[in-house]
Amino acid sequence: MSKVLGVIGGMGPAATVAFLARVQALTPARGDADHIRVLMDLNPQVPDRNTRPGEAEVVLGQMAARLAAAGAQVIAMPCNTAHAQAGEIRAVCAAQGLGFIDMIAATADAAVADHGLNDGARRIGVLATSGGGRLYQAALEARGVETVLLDGADREAFMGLVYGVKRGDVGEAARVGMRGLAQALGEAGAQALIAGCTEVPLLLRAEEAPVGLTDSAEVLARACVGACL
Amino acid sequence: MSKVLGVIGGMGPAATVAFLARVQALTPARGDADHIRVLMDLNPQVPDRNTRPGEAEVVLGQMAARLAAAGAQVIAMPCNTAHAQAGEIRAVCAAQGLGFIDMIAATADAAVADHGLNDGARRIGVLATSGGGRLYQAALEARGVETVLLDGADREAFMGLVYGVKRGDVGEAARVGMRGLAQALGEAGAQALIAGCTEVPLLLRAEEAPVGLTDSAEVLARACVGACL
Repeated sequence: MSKVLGVIGGMGPAATVAFLARVQALTPARGDADHIRVLMDLNPQVPDRNTRPGEAEVVLGQMAARLAAAGAQVIAMPCNTAHAQAGEIRAVCAAQGLGFIDMIAATADAAVADHGLNDGARRIGVLATSGGGRLYQAALEARGVETVLLDGADREAFMGLVYGVKRGDVGEAARVGMRGLAQALGEAGAQALIAGCTEVPLLLRAEEAPVGLTDSAEVLARACVGACL
Repeated sequence: MSKVLGVIGGMGPAATVAFLARVQALTPARGDADHIRVLMDLNPQVPDRNTRPGEAEVVLGQMAARLAAAGAQVIAMPCNTAHAQAGEIRAVCAAQGLGFIDMIAATADAAVADHGLNDGARRIGVLATSGGGRLYQAALEARGVETVLLDGADREAFMGLVYGVKRGDVGEAARVGMRGLAQALGEAGAQALIAGCTEVPLLLRAEEAPVGLTDSAEVLARACVGACL
């Protein structure tokens, strides 16, 4: 019997749906019954993680508790930035004996493994929000890897593209824009990239990146399938 | 404040995810917070609706009760066939004052309105499972419209395509197959079509159908947005 996956979603809504599709695509299934049961709370009204982090943390913890009460056994949150406010989620999971899959740690591990960086290369570029970038910087530093982040106008352009996705804009101009930012990180010395925001893969495919790209949503989906099956 | 949508899903898993994407696409949103909160139980292990209908009805009722307890205010189930086992869901919703959107009734209404059939034309073809076809036949009959259903080898071919989608097969051969079945209903006298199974739109777009096609998943998504916003 597979475990029930609890998904803390809605940050943003489209990224959550894309994440569910990935979990299914990565599940070896010959029919409905082979798939993982998923309880999801897609809550687009979680307080803003940048401006109201404390309130966000409380709401995220309540969402985890409700998913646990409904029967979830493994918890995942397909939003990198919100992992800075995952403290209450971790507390709920620890108290109830549930697994919480840390998207940042899993992705940092995968990025280092994916590109053989532990054999030499030492600089990974991260496409992420300011908050997500800080989480990855710490995680990569702990693994002996230097982080290359977007700055200035590039950071602003990135946020514009992310908010565009949240409005439904995944058109060609937005895709060109995200490719350009990936290129900029490569030119700044990144030997590999992390798509460290769940909106990124809605605009950029791995094969379009100038260097090897590890997608945090793909890593988390794979970890969920591994933990639940 | 918008209402919280509760989705009884997993029949099948891919159709549920496609349904969530439609709800979002139909929601006028400038950012995350404009989207509808969705609580979902994607349960691919609901007992088989054809061979164990009584057990399925009990499980579906339990899923509705759990979604209600978690805060859902409007319940929808993006699976036409399972509406034959919706009795317990209706009982839970009635007892707790929640709305349940009847996918079959909403789609039959929309099909009659979409194609102006109430002005003359009187035959609607339905791409559905045996169980779903019976539900639509009753609903359309109540609206004074004749139903054209798949039979014999075409019905078997249809079920093969549906189970194929559940295995992940949405390739070109499957798409050609579904177009052929839509064509067959047209040749049998259907003046309009209903995609009366949530796997159908994963293989057939409205513009590929030989006559006007009303998609039950689209109708349900639109009704959910209307009920929750």
